[in-house]
Amino acid sequence: MKITVLGTGAVGRAVAGRLDDLGHDVTMGTREPAATAGREEHAAWATQHAGVRLVAFAGSAAGADLVVNALGGDVVLDNLALVGPDLAGRILADLSNPLDHSQGIPPRLFVKDDDSLAERIQRAHPDARVVKTLNTMNNAVMVDPAQLGESSTVFVSGDDPAAKAVVSALLGELGHTDVIDLGGLETARGPEMFLALWVRTAVALGGSDFNIKVVRGPSLRG
Amino acid sequence: MKITVLGTGAVGRAVAGRLDDLGHDVTMGTREPAATAGREEHAAWATQHAGVRLVAFAGSAAGADLVVNALGGDVVLDNLALVGPDLAGRILADLSNPLDHSQGIPPRLFVKDDDSLAERIQRAHPDARVVKTLNTMNNAVMVDPAQLGESSTVFVSGDDPAAKAVVSALLGELGHTDVIDLGGLETARGPEMFLALWVRTAVALGGSDFNIKVVRGPSLRG
Repeated sequence: MKITVLGTGAVGRAVAGRLDDLGHDVTMGTREPAATAGREEHAAWATQHAGVRLVAFAGSAAGADLVVNALGGDVVLDNLALVGPDLAGRILADLSNPLDHSQGIPPRLFVKDDDSLAERIQRAHPDARVVKTLNTMNNAVMVDPAQLGESSTVFVSGDDPAAKAVVSALLGELGHTDVIDLGGLETARGPEMFLALWVRTAVALGGSDFNIKVVRGPSLRG
Repeated sequence: MKITVLGTGAVGRAVAGRLDDLGHDVTMGTREPAATAGREEHAAWATQHAGVRLVAFAGSAAGADLVVNALGGDVVLDNLALVGPDLAGRILADLSNPLDHSQGIPPRLFVKDDDSLAERIQRAHPDARVVKTLNTMNNAVMVDPAQLGESSTVFVSGDDPAAKAVVSALLGELGHTDVIDLGGLETARGPEMFLALWVRTAVALGGSDFNIKVVRGPSLRG
């Protein structure tokens, strides 16, 4: 697939790198490509992923079968606006979290409960086909859940069933074996609010090398 | 142990009944004992648990080694006020959730992110030793997690390490094999906000016969 990954931080590199390894045709969108290319952590990564194009946000989503939002929650709406009209009609996998670091550790959420970041993105880009997913785990687990040594769960939320099917198939390629479709995009409030538990669990365990598994009892087994 | 369970709804009955089965000395506190005793669902349960005393809130916690708050989130502060000064110095296991049903399904939370129901309880009863736990699963799983057929996770949060140790030991008696101590009572915001994901997962799966397991990767294994 032709995939555009928006964002060149740790999440963007992990996702773009893994999709490149899987043989997808990957473009990365960033605010200032020259500045990003000059960063040490990006340069080191780029030598392993020479086939990944690095371009400015504007136009980066043109022709993409799938766009991945790996932007920080605090800049996602501004940066998606720079991507522009190419988002119309496209599947937009939203991996971001509405983390508010202004109050220190642990972060709070700048939107929750009666709205979500995914819904804000959808309202700002009503013709995009937004699917919330993967925001409930760290980037290493996102792209290689099998490393945990045991099946764990990933969620999808979105109003477009066909878009969710495409995203779910890609999650399978990454190694996700238990994909729970929560329903419409409103349900993204659940995985986003889970971050409050995720960050505290990471502190308690002393690391983020974990994921949750939804263990079903007898009545819910297929 | 001498245990007082506050609340006589489904959670209270499940917890009090199981603790009675385990051989604990159980008292249930309720607003109007005669009215509760007259309810069909209580009467049916009480025939199986003749040793459990049903008393009014006032005085119900006197002499208890542990008090379990199984009250609905919307009435917990009012009803704890009726329990009165006997809460001072006692371990108070808080199982409640701040569910706001006024907006329909799914419920919202009437406190979150910068505060929690557990912290409100602690502030209202500064001498109680509040431990948040068990609020992340249905009552059948609370009292018998082994029925799921696989280990799953329960969390504890509280400012009093000795109180958390007592509660954790009791969780072990119920069959909980993975107890994560999140830290101080502030961390109760995490398990409480998880409810937003729990309710949507229950809708998606078509039932609440599940629990989450924190699957650790290699770096976090003991």
